[in-house]
Amino acid sequence: MIKVKLPADWELGFQKEKDLQPQEWHPASVPGAVQLDMMHTLEERDWTRGDGYRQFRWMEDVWWTYRTRFDKPSLSGSDRLYFHSKGIDYAFEISLNGKALLQQEGMFRRVDLDLTDHLEVKNDLRIQIAPVPKSHHERDDRTQANRAFKPAVSYGWDWHPRLVPLGIWDETSLEIRRDFLHDIRTRYSLDDSLENADLAITANVAAGVESVSVSVECKGDTVHKQEFRQGEGEFSGSIKLEKIRLWWPAGHGEPDLYELIVSAFDRNHKLMDEHRTTIGFRKVRLVRNTGTEREDPGFPKSRLLPPVTLEINNRRIFAQGTNWVNPEIFPGVIGEDRYRDLIVLAAGIGFNIFRVWGGGIVNKDFFHECCDRTGMMVWQEFPLACNDYPDDESYLSVLRPEARAIIERVGQHPSTVLWSGGNELYNSWSGMDDQSLALRWINSLCLELTPEIPFIPTSPLQGMGHGHYLFYDPSSDEDICQLMARMNNTALTEYGVPSPSDAEIIRKIIPLEEIFPPSPDSAAWIVHHAFKSWQDDTWLCPEVIEKYYGSSENLEEMVERGQKLQAAGYRFIYEAARQKWPYCSMAINWCYNEPWPTAANNSIVQHPALPKPACESIREACRPVMASASFPKYQWHPGEMLEFDLFMLNHSARDIPAGKMTIAVNGGDIKTWQFGEVQENTVLKGPRLMIRVPARVRDQGMTGMEIALKVLGHPEWDSVYKLPVKA
Amino acid sequence: MIKVKLPADWELGFQKEKDLQPQEWHPASVPGAVQLDMMHTLEERDWTRGDGYRQFRWMEDVWWTYRTRFDKPSLSGSDRLYFHSKGIDYAFEISLNGKALLQQEGMFRRVDLDLTDHLEVKNDLRIQIAPVPKSHHERDDRTQANRAFKPAVSYGWDWHPRLVPLGIWDETSLEIRRDFLHDIRTRYSLDDSLENADLAITANVAAGVESVSVSVECKGDTVHKQEFRQGEGEFSGSIKLEKIRLWWPAGHGEPDLYELIVSAFDRNHKLMDEHRTTIGFRKVRLVRNTGTEREDPGFPKSRLLPPVTLEINNRRIFAQGTNWVNPEIFPGVIGEDRYRDLIVLAAGIGFNIFRVWGGGIVNKDFFHECCDRTGMMVWQEFPLACNDYPDDESYLSVLRPEARAIIERVGQHPSTVLWSGGNELYNSWSGMDDQSLALRWINSLCLELTPEIPFIPTSPLQGMGHGHYLFYDPSSDEDICQLMARMNNTALTEYGVPSPSDAEIIRKIIPLEEIFPPSPDSAAWIVHHAFKSWQDDTWLCPEVIEKYYGSSENLEEMVERGQKLQAAGYRFIYEAARQKWPYCSMAINWCYNEPWPTAANNSIVQHPALPKPACESIREACRPVMASASFPKYQWHPGEMLEFDLFMLNHSARDIPAGKMTIAVNGGDIKTWQFGEVQENTVLKGPRLMIRVPARVRDQGMTGMEIALKVLGHPEWDSVYKLPVKA
Repeated sequence: MIKVKLPADWELGFQKEKDLQPQEWHPASVPGAVQLDMMHTLEERDWTRGDGYRQFRWMEDVWWTYRTRFDKPSLSGSDRLYFHSKGIDYAFEISLNGKALLQQEGMFRRVDLDLTDHLEVKNDLRIQIAPVPKSHHERDDRTQANRAFKPAVSYGWDWHPRLVPLGIWDETSLEIRRDFLHDIRTRYSLDDSLENADLAITANVAAGVESVSVSVECKGDTVHKQEFRQGEGEFSGSIKLEKIRLWWPAGHGEPDLYELIVSAFDRNHKLMDEHRTTIGFRKVRLVRNTGTEREDPGFPKSRLLPPVTLEINNRRIFAQGTNWVNPEIFPGVIGEDRYRDLIVLAAGIGFNIFRVWGGGIVNKDFFHECCDRTGMMVWQEFPLACNDYPDDESYLSVLRPEARAIIERVGQHPSTVLWSGGNELYNSWSGMDDQSLALRWINSLCLELTPEIPFIPTSPLQGMGHGHYLFYDPSSDEDICQLMARMNNTALTEYGVPSPSDAEIIRKIIPLEEIFPPSPDSAAWIVHHAFKSWQDDTWLCPEVIEKYYGSSENLEEMVERGQKLQAAGYRFIYEAARQKWPYCSMAINWCYNEPWPTAANNSIVQHPALPKPACESIREACRPVMASASFPKYQWHPGEMLEFDLFMLNHSARDIPAGKMTIAVNGGDIKTWQFGEVQENTVLKGPRLMIRVPARVRDQGMTGMEIALKVLGHPEWDSVYKLPVKA
Repeated sequence: MIKVKLPADWELGFQKEKDLQPQEWHPASVPGAVQLDMMHTLEERDWTRGDGYRQFRWMEDVWWTYRTRFDKPSLSGSDRLYFHSKGIDYAFEISLNGKALLQQEGMFRRVDLDLTDHLEVKNDLRIQIAPVPKSHHERDDRTQANRAFKPAVSYGWDWHPRLVPLGIWDETSLEIRRDFLHDIRTRYSLDDSLENADLAITANVAAGVESVSVSVECKGDTVHKQEFRQGEGEFSGSIKLEKIRLWWPAGHGEPDLYELIVSAFDRNHKLMDEHRTTIGFRKVRLVRNTGTEREDPGFPKSRLLPPVTLEINNRRIFAQGTNWVNPEIFPGVIGEDRYRDLIVLAAGIGFNIFRVWGGGIVNKDFFHECCDRTGMMVWQEFPLACNDYPDDESYLSVLRPEARAIIERVGQHPSTVLWSGGNELYNSWSGMDDQSLALRWINSLCLELTPEIPFIPTSPLQGMGHGHYLFYDPSSDEDICQLMARMNNTALTEYGVPSPSDAEIIRKIIPLEEIFPPSPDSAAWIVHHAFKSWQDDTWLCPEVIEKYYGSSENLEEMVERGQKLQAAGYRFIYEAARQKWPYCSMAINWCYNEPWPTAANNSIVQHPALPKPACESIREACRPVMASASFPKYQWHPGEMLEFDLFMLNHSARDIPAGKMTIAVNGGDIKTWQFGEVQENTVLKGPRLMIRVPARVRDQGMTGMEIALKVLGHPEWDSVYKLPVKA
C-alpha cells in the first residue's frame, strides 16, 4: 500500500446531549484524550498533584465531538482518500459533511473508511464520542465496566485513580492510498526439526499488475527471492526456507527476525505496491509442569493440574518476568520512546516475559515490535478483569469483532506466546466460570485465527498463584520468606512487595504540609495509593517499615528503608520460584510499571520509567547461572537455629561444570559444597546447612547478619544475603 | 420431505486388498455389522460363550464391500433417488456402477447421496469399508483408537472384549424423495419469566409452493397455526407462544413436548411437503455448586472450582443417574425396544440423568427421543476416551465435521443438557490437557451451534470424582462407607461396586467344567471380566465376598452374596451424595448397563436389560423424599461405638412439613427426632446418634444389626439399613 498522509488539524468540543452541537471548539491533539485537550484548554493546574485528577470527573458524562475540515485533495487514477484510525475510545459515530458513515462500539478495531465517494469541495469530518460506558451508577468503580470491552482499570483500581479516558488514542490520519495488493496473509509451518519453514502467502491483486515478487530478508541479507507472473485476481504463493534462524526468547538464543516483502509490478516492471511483514519463526506449546503428570494415589480421582510451562522451540523456559500495566492513564500519549525505555529496562533486569494484564489496554504496535526485537515474550490478556462479564448478545456482539481484531494484530508477532481471556475471572470477586460465553468466544476465535498459540481462560488457574502482595502480613504474622517456604504453585503469576516511591516524586505529588510523617487521613497520600488502597495501610505500610527498621526521621529515610525491604522481598520471591523449577515454571511479579506517579506501589519501575532499587535486586536474582539459598523466615533472633538449603540455579542454555561453593556467615567460612555438573535448564539442590544465629552481629545499616555464597572462579555467580537480627 | 423407501437386498463380501474384489457374496443385514453377517454365514458357534469372540479377530484387517443391485425406478416430476444412511462405520467409499461418489472417514455424519443423475437401467451400488483403523500395531488395546473418531471401547476395555465393529450400523435406505422444503431450522428463545417463547423458523422453499403453514401442537391440541404466503426462496417465519409448558427432568415436573409442523402447499392448497420437529422448551445452565463460591483464606489465591450443578428452568437439580454404555457390542443391532426397555427401567429407579460415556457410540435418534419423552437428562460425551488424541490436522479434519453432525443432531433434543469432550482426558492415563486442539474445536463447535447448552471438556474436572470401583479395597483397607465419609467432591460422576451376574447368565457363558469355584486362571471367567480386568480379582472379587459372608458353597450362593453387597454399596453411595447436597450435585454410578453378558461387572443392569438387585436398593436410595443415615464404616464388632448422622432428604419440588422420625436398632426404639419443615430441594441434617454395637445380634442371612428410621405417618419415607457385625 502506497500512502500519502494529509496534514489535518483537529478540534474538539463537547455537548450535554447527543443531538446538540458543541458550543465551542478547542484545538485537539490526535492521538490523545479528550480530557487532556480540555485540560490544556482550561489551563488547569497539574492534575497529578494532590487530588487534582478529580477535575476530570464531569467529562465522563458528556458527548464529545472531534472535527477536521479539509479541501478535497486531487486524486489521480485509482487513488482513494481514506480516514484511518488505529483506535478510537470508545463508542463513536463518524460522519462526513453531516452524513453518518460508521457507528462502532469498541476501541481496538481499526477504522478504514473510504471517503472518496462522499467528498465535496469543502469537507467536514466529525467523530462523535459517547460518554463513558457505565453499566450502572451505583458505585464509581470497576463494576461499571462489566458490560464494556474497555479496560476496567480506568474506572479506579488500588493503584490507578478513577479517570476514564475517551477519544482518539492511536495513530489516525487522512491518507491517499494507492493499493494494488489487498488482504495479504502469510502463514508458516515448521518441520519437525524446526530447521525448515514453509511459507504460504495469499493476496488479492488489482488490475494493472503483471507480476508479484516475494523476497525474504534476514539481518539485511536477501535469503530468498521469487517472482510470479500474476495479474488481477487471487495470488497464492508458497516458499520453502531452509536452515532458518529461529526466534528465541531472551536468554535462550537470538530473537532472529525475517522480513517478507511482497511487491507488485506493472508490465514495465515498475513498482506499483509493496507490503512488508516481519516474521519470527518459533514453535510454542504450553506443557504440563514437571511433577504434575501423575495423580495422587487413592480415589476418587480428579483431574491433573492444567499445564503452565512455556515451551519454545521444544525447550522448556522458566518464565521470569513481570506484569505490564498501562504506562499512562491516557494511552493516547504513550509514545515509542516510553515503550522502548520500559522494554529495554526490563531486558536489562533479565526478564523474558511480560504478562500484559487484562485490566489495561492492548498495547500499540510498537510495543509488540519492540518485544519481537528484544526476545521479550508476551502473555497477552484480553481486556476483561475482576468483573462478571455477561453472556448477553449485546456484549458478545462487541466482544467478537474486537477480540478478532486483537488476535489478528497481536497474534502475528512471534513474541506473543500466550493468550489469556483476562485477569482473575474465576475468583469470587469476579464471579465468572468456565461456562462464560465471553470466554468461550475468545477461546474459539483464538483457535480459529492462531491455533499455534496456547490459550488459557484466565489467571490464576488451578495450581497457579496470585498474591500475596505484602512483605509482611500482620493478619497471618507471615513474612515473604515464610510464604515462599510453603509455596507449591506451578506458576507465580502475580505477587508483590510494596515500596514508597522516590522522595523526589512524592514531593511533587504531595503538598508540603502533608509530607511527613505521612498521615492515613491525608487526601493526597490516599489519592496516590499510600493508604486505603486495597487495605488500610497499603501501599505505604509504614508499620512494616518500622517493624524492621524502627521509626524513620524523615521522608528520605522512610523511602530508602521501604525500597530496601521491597528489593529484598522481590529477590527472595524470584529465587524461591527458580529453586522450585521445573515444578514451578513462572515468576511474574505484580507489577512492573505504573500509569502515573504513585506515592507507594508494588511496582518496581516508577512513572514514567524510573527504576526502584528492586530492579537491581531482581537482576541479581534473575542471573541465568547463580548460587542461591532459601531461608525459612526473614527476621531472626540471636541464638536461634537457622536452617537453609543451597542451590545452583542454571537457567542458561549451557551446562555448568562441577565446582565448589563456599558459604560464609558474617565473613567467616562455615562450609564448602562440592557440586557436580549442573545441566542446562536445571536446578541442583545442595545440602541443608544449620547455623546458630550469631549473638554479636555486624552493623549494616540494619542490624543483621550476612550470608555469602561464593563460587570458586565465578564471582559473577556469587550471592550475598542480609537478614535482620533482633535482640 | 415425502419419501418412498425402495426395498433393497444387501450382500457382503471381503477382500485382502483394497483393489481386489470379494470372492464370495453373502447375505447382509442392514443395519448390522460385517462381523455378524460373516458369523451367520460361517455358522459359527455362539460367540459370547467361552472365548468364542476371538473368532472375529481376522475380520479387523480386511476390506469389506456391501452391494445392492436395483433397477432404475420410475421417477416423476421433481422426484430424486437418494441413498441415505444414518451411519456407516468407519472409513468408506460409496460407488455406483463403478463410479466413486463419496469418500468419508467417520461413522456419525449422515450420508445423503443424490443418485439420480448417475442412474442406469441396471444399477450396482457398493460401499467399500476399510479395515479397522489402528494408529499402531504394538498393543491390541484402546490406544490403537487414538487417531480415530471411533469409540475406543471396542478396542478392548475392562468390561468389553476386544471386538471392533465395522459396517452399516444405522438406518439406511434407497429412497425416492420429493422435497419442497429444505434446510428447515428452528430456534427458540424464552423470556425471563420462562412463560413465553419466540420461535424463529427458516427454510428454503422450492418452486411450485404458494404457501407455507406453521402449526404447533401440544398433547394433541393445536396451540398455534399460521399461514404465510410464500413462493420459491428463503422462508423466514416467527411465532410467539404464550404460557408455554416447560420441559422438566423426571421428578421435577412433566417433560412436556411440542410438535412443530411446517407444511408447503401449492396454488390449489394441495399439501406438497411436510416437516415435523419436536421441541421441548427449557433453559439450562451449569452453575457453581453451593459452598464453592468463596476462596480459602490466605495467599496465594488459585481459582474457584468449576461449576457442575445443573440448573434447569432456574431450578437446581440433583442429578441422580447412571453411566450409559453401549447396550450391544455391535451397535447396528440396537433396536428401539432395547432403548425403551433400558430407559423405562432407569426411570423406574428414579434416575433423572444418563451420562453417555465417551468410550462408546453416540446413540441413535430413538434413544434421544425416548429421553425427551421420559424427562431423562442426557449428558452427552463425544467419542474420545482415555487416550491422547492428537492436534494433527488429519485427525481434526475428521473430528470437526463429525462433531458438527453430532451437535446438530443430538443438540436439538431438550434432554441434552450437557456436552462433554470425552472421558477422563485430563488424567495421566490419557495425557491430554486444556491445550488440546481437539477439545478446543469441540468446545468451539458446541458454542457456535448450541450456545444454550453447557460444555465441559472432560470428566472429571477439579472437584469432581471418578472412582472408587470396589466395595472394599484391600490395598487401602477402606470400604465404601469409609470412602463416602471422607468424600468431598462436587459431583460423583463415576463410582462402582461390582457384582457377579445372575447364575443363569454365567452358566450360559462359562463352560460347565470351569463354573465353580471360579478360578483366576479360567480363560472363560477372564474373558468375561471376572478376573484380570483392571485388577487381578476384578470384577468378581471373590475374597471380598468371602470377607463379609465366609466361603460360598456354590455358584448361586456366591452370586446372591455378591449381588447383595453391590446393592448395599450402591445404596450407601447414592445416599451419601444426596446427604451432601447442594455442595455435591451429582451421583452417577459406573455403570448402568453392559454390551454383552459379563460374568461380573459394576453394571446394575445385565445384558440385554435384566436388572440386578442393586436396581431396587438404588431405587430406595433415590426416593425424592426419605429418611437417611450415614455410617462411618460398613462392618462392626460387638461393643464398638457406632456414631451416625440422621438426615431428611427432600429432592422433590414441594416442601415437607415438620414431622417425627423414630430410630430403632434391632427392633428397639432408641431415639426420636422431631424435625422441622424440610423445604423443597433441600437436605435437613439431624442429630448425630451414638450407640454401642449390640453383642447379641439378630441373624439376617448375614450376621448383622438392623437400623431402622421410621417417619411417623410416612412409611414410604422409612429406611432400614443392615450392617454386618463380626465377633
